Amino acid sequence: MAVAGPEIERLIQLLARLPGLGPRSARRAALHLIKKREALMVPLASAMQVAIERIQVCKTCGNIDTQSPCTVCTDPRRDPAMIVVVADVADLWALERAKASNGRYHVLGGTLSPLDGVGPQDLTIDALVQRAHAPEVSEIILALNATVDGQTTAHYITDLLQEANVKVTRLAHGVPVGGELDYLDEGTLSAAMRQRTLF
Amino acid sequence: MAVAGPEIERLIQLLARLPGLGPRSARRAALHLIKKREALMVPLASAMQVAIERIQVCKTCGNIDTQSPCTVCTDPRRDPAMIVVVADVADLWALERAKASNGRYHVLGGTLSPLDGVGPQDLTIDALVQRAHAPEVSEIILALNATVDGQTTAHYITDLLQEANVKVTRLAHGVPVGGELDYLDEGTLSAAMRQRTLF
Repeated sequence: MAVAGPEIERLIQLLARLPGLGPRSARRAALHLIKKREALMVPLASAMQVAIERIQVCKTCGNIDTQSPCTVCTDPRRDPAMIVVVADVADLWALERAKASNGRYHVLGGTLSPLDGVGPQDLTIDALVQRAHAPEVSEIILALNATVDGQTTAHYITDLLQEANVKVTRLAHGVPVGGELDYLDEGTLSAAMRQRTLF
Repeated sequence: MAVAGPEIERLIQLLARLPGLGPRSARRAALHLIKKREALMVPLASAMQVAIERIQVCKTCGNIDTQSPCTVCTDPRRDPAMIVVVADVADLWALERAKASNGRYHVLGGTLSPLDGVGPQDLTIDALVQRAHAPEVSEIILALNATVDGQTTAHYITDLLQEANVKVTRLAHGVPVGGELDYLDEGTLSAAMRQRTLF
């Protein structure tokens, strides 16, 4: 591939490191960028430059934004009594898209995972405990993945929050909206049955 | 999605216009870029800036490179007697990866497609005919897709090259290397049978 020159080769290699793009699709993406230089590559390069210069991590909650504290943390319409704990910014975005909560957030930066060497000191758990002790906070909602790591993290945090004067809740388990019972696993079905609600 | 701010939203929208990335994977890609700011976003932005400034289309063959005429056209080890005609730069790259030819190239910029409104004037066919009349050129290899549009283009070019003193060839049809006969279509199988070679 010395035909295309080292500049294009480097562009392809960097694009291939994006999630969802392999070496082959990175090549297609690079070619697409080069063909649409003015319409796509120039604006994308400048959008990335803006992101590089302006995006920062919120010191309060761990969200990413162009300001710190972030828009969510400074929004006066948000309920300061609720803190929704998520593992990752992607989860925060997902909950915001669903307009699932009017509270504020706390991004842990991952989940506890002894196998991957992720311990409590690698996450922002201390900061969460500190925030939970603030007088205005009354509920901590653990919106963590329903995986082993996610639930381990949830248990760990719950233990640490014993002394704080907060209610600790977690997302409900149950049948996904639009889901068919026939295709659901036994764990979900029995959880949905146990936590059935009045119709 | 007003949480993330317009800067991130714009980055996501532009990334979503890359082939192979949808809105969802563009969001993941943007988050990945923001998290790996120094390791990935900064180098990618600068690689794109370099590409914007330096990459150009070769005036001779239509390849993209940082110089015009491109590296292939100026390489003295390349056989000037052969011109491999391809529809797109991606095809040129594919042939180069396969080291399929030692000749030079001619990128048409597409294939004739009346339905899409692509006529001969939209492709670099005139330039190809002109190159074919050069005294050193003895063979034009049509490396076009084995689709209706590709083959229509091949026929059209062959007609135009009647007067040039060149041999016009096309890629062989046949069983792909590693392919199983059972899964091949009838057209390919009968072409492979007709064009069988001595073992």
